[in-house]
Formats: sequence, C-alpha cells, structure tokens
Amino acid sequence: MVNEKLILDGSRVASAVKEDLKPRVDKLNESGITPCLATILVGNDPSSATYVKMKGNACERLGILSKKIELAENTTTEELLKTIQSLNEDEGVHGILLQHPVPSQIDERAAFEAIAIEKDVDGVTSLGFGQTSLGFGTYPSCTPAAILEIMDYYELPIEGKHAVVIGRSPILGKPVSMMLLNRNATVTTCHSYTENLENIVRNADIVVAAVGKPNFVKGSWIKEGAMVLDAGYNKGNIGDVDYEECLKPASAITPVPGGVGPVTISMLLRQTVEAAEKLI
Amino acid sequence: MVNEKLILDGSRVASAVKEDLKPRVDKLNESGITPCLATILVGNDPSSATYVKMKGNACERLGILSKKIELAENTTTEELLKTIQSLNEDEGVHGILLQHPVPSQIDERAAFEAIAIEKDVDGVTSLGFGQTSLGFGTYPSCTPAAILEIMDYYELPIEGKHAVVIGRSPILGKPVSMMLLNRNATVTTCHSYTENLENIVRNADIVVAAVGKPNFVKGSWIKEGAMVLDAGYNKGNIGDVDYEECLKPASAITPVPGGVGPVTISMLLRQTVEAAEKLI
Repeated sequence: MVNEKLILDGSRVASAVKEDLKPRVDKLNESGITPCLATILVGNDPSSATYVKMKGNACERLGILSKKIELAENTTTEELLKTIQSLNEDEGVHGILLQHPVPSQIDERAAFEAIAIEKDVDGVTSLGFGQTSLGFGTYPSCTPAAILEIMDYYELPIEGKHAVVIGRSPILGKPVSMMLLNRNATVTTCHSYTENLENIVRNADIVVAAVGKPNFVKGSWIKEGAMVLDAGYNKGNIGDVDYEECLKPASAITPVPGGVGPVTISMLLRQTVEAAEKLI
Repeated sequence: MVNEKLILDGSRVASAVKEDLKPRVDKLNESGITPCLATILVGNDPSSATYVKMKGNACERLGILSKKIELAENTTTEELLKTIQSLNEDEGVHGILLQHPVPSQIDERAAFEAIAIEKDVDGVTSLGFGQTSLGFGTYPSCTPAAILEIMDYYELPIEGKHAVVIGRSPILGKPVSMMLLNRNATVTTCHSYTENLENIVRNADIVVAAVGKPNFVKGSWIKEGAMVLDAGYNKGNIGDVDYEECLKPASAITPVPGGVGPVTISMLLRQTVEAAEKLI
C-alpha cells in the first residue's frame, strides 16, 4: 500500500528493466544470436524520425541490433506490405516496429495487420490485441505494458480497484483497459462521448490519462489518494494531466517527462529480447 | 428514445433477422451455394447436446445445411485440432461452431484458435475478438451481437450512455464491453473482484448481466429508466436478473426465456449466411 505520496520515476523503472535485460542479451550473444529490431519509418515527419532514432539508439546501447528501414513519403500500401513481408521472412529480424503515423495514402491498419504475430513486439496487430485481452499470447502494446510495469515496480495495488481510463485508442486506451481488467481491476473506459467525465474520474482509484490533450485532467477531478498514470505526451513536454494540480490529491503520480515515456521504450527492448529468446 | 416500459421480445427480433435471411439464402442457392454450418460436439454433456441440436434445427429450418460432427468423450486435443483443420479446408463448410465446454483433457483455447478466421462465425478466436474490438473484421461472438441487435431493433440509445457490464468472459463480457465502447457508450466492466457493485450498477443507463448467477441483479440496483439486458441463462430458465424486481425501475428489459437467447441463435445463422455470401 501507498503510505506517502509517490512520484513514479519512469527513468528508475526503465533502468531496472534494462539491468535485467543486459545478462539476457549476453546469453543470446553466447548462443550466436544478436537480437534485432527492424524499425520502419515512412515519410518525412520530423517527430516520427526522432522517435525512431530514440528507439534505435536505445537498442544499440543495450546490444540490440537496430535495422533501420526508411521509405519515401509517397510509398504505397503495396510497397510497405512487401517490406513488412520481407522482414517477416528475415530470420535475423526478431521484432518489427512500424512507426505511427504513416502518410495518408497508406492503409495503416493493413500494414499493422501484416506484421507476423511472433515479431509484433510493438503490439499493434489485432491478433496481438486479442491475445493480450484474453489473457495469453505474446506482446502487448508498449505503453500499456509500461503503465503496468510502473505500477508493479512501485507495488501499487490493482486488484479490486476502480480504474478509469480516459481514451480508447487501439494501442493505448483499449489495451490498457483490458490489461487492468485482467489484473482484476474494475475498469471504466471513457472518451469524447462520455458524459459527466469529471464525476466518473472522481470515483477512480486509478486514473489512466491517454487522451492526447495537454493538462486535460484537472486536480479537482482526482479523488484523495488516487493513483494517476499519465500516458500523454503533448507538444512542449506536457502530459494529459495537470501535474501540479493533481499532485496534491494523488497518492502516486507519473510526471511528464520522465514517467511513462522512458518505460515504454524499455518495454519495446524487452519484448524484442523475448522474441529473440524464443530461438534459443 | 424510450417513452414507456418496453419488454424486449427476443423472439420478435429473431423472427425479423430470419425474415431478412430467407431471400439471402435463396440467392445463395441460385448461385449453387448451400450455406453450411459445421457443429462439433465433444463428449456426452446433455445440455451441450441439446444446444447443438437446437442450433442444427434452426439452421435446417432456414435452408442452412447443418453438418454435425460428434466426437467421443475421450477425444484428445490433437484429434480435435485435426477435425477442425479438415473443416477449415472443406470448401463446402462456411462456418464452424465448437460447442463449449469441451471435456477437461482438451485444450479448449487451442481448439478455438485453430478455427480459420473466415469460418469463425461463432466469434471465439482471439483474432476475431481483436478485430471486433478494434472495430473492423468479421464475426463477433453471437451473444454480444444479439444484445446489440436487440438494442438496435428497439432503437435504444447507446451513444453517450453509461453501460455497466457484469461479467468478463471471452465470449460475452469482454466482447460486449468492446462493442458498446465502439458504439460510443462509456463502459464499465465488473466481475467477482468488483467492490461496491451495487453502487456502480446504480449509475448505469445500460446494464448487461453476464455473470451466470440466477437472479443476481436486484431491482434496488437499477436506476429509474435504465435499460436491462440479461444474457444469463441458468438452470430452470432463470436469468441473471431478478426480472420481477427490475421490471419496475427499468425503461426496457429482456425477459428470460425469450430475450437474448433466441437472438443469439439467429446471429449464428446470419453470420453463417454472411460467410457463405463471401463466395458469390
């Protein structure tokens, strides 16, 4: 249980994850396997390029090979599908990450679905989502996994708690709702059509903000002692939660930056290592 | 909107679905296609045998071929998987239903997962669940589909409403939660670990009972004007909802029997016809 206010330090959690991974990468190397994450960047979006670079650097620091595929802005769905297919077949590639978003002429869902389940370390396929939701299978989406990792690291209680998730995206709101449900939380999923959102959040023991709007969740919405997990990352390093306000009532809270973000990347690393370990 | 109390008559909804299907089956026949549902019954459970028989009869009344596979109580997982594989490959079979539950020596999840997605008309695979949850793809689980069908038939409002689902099974509580979420309801999923269940249900505009306990939901839990959908079916034709009590506050309610049950079977028929239509 939480007895005093906890600032949930994502960098500390991420470091612990990476410390755990180092000997596992060494063991893979001894078996002649270098874990490899293929990243696909389509087009010229500067934020996406930065994200892919960060992920590649994080891989390399840990001894994971980063295979960078860059495709032109005018790439077609068919061309992207061919690239994914060749990575599916490449025995040296253990994980595939297609950076979201892709240019608008591409059918992003078709591209995600084309990723082989055993290489879907970013948890974007509907099969991966289904397996995660039904409580078995391989790799959940990385941000939901990071939220659970932080809660587990700090031994925050989940079972029997009422969790309110704000957002219902395929890689964040929906999977984190299902993962909290599988951990025996009672889960309410909210979104833009939700009426009386403030009142619903006021009943939450666990608040997960995944809405993509800066400082959206106000301090007055937070029940005294609630746990607040902010998966938002808006321009200017601003989360979805008004941190200064919510810090007061919360018993535990993630800052932005330095909260969920760093752990998300470490989940990607871990899931890539796990994919490679299946070959030993 | 609902202006007076509605008894949601599942037999009427099921009849409407079947009326819609008849000309579609005729059209298939004209194309030389007889839609065919394969049912697999493993072992000697009398209730399961009855369910399979009911489903087969419903098929035949509509001109859908019912291919009945009966396997012995001591069937192994491998034998069942082989049967499913041969039905996957059988071009004359459009839908496959594996009757739940199977004997305990069988890995039921592995068997469900083996059903080809295009023949998963009962909505049991994790891929089907994932596709339904992410808002695309083919066939949802039949009971959740029936609940939505009843609500749509009676033009009950879903968008913006607060739905409380009691139960989180892979073929009922979880998928109906995701389907209501995709229809823009705010959704709370409850289960055996939920604290203060009564208070949570008291806030619901839509209550879906899928818990498998007779008369579990009490009249005092129901908000004045709430819509009550009872997916329970317990021994003695008793639902999960105390119907007599809940009838008073509810604006709309499904009886048991004659509510969700008959519509569930009609969803199975419709999804089998849809699977066959993909061949035209």
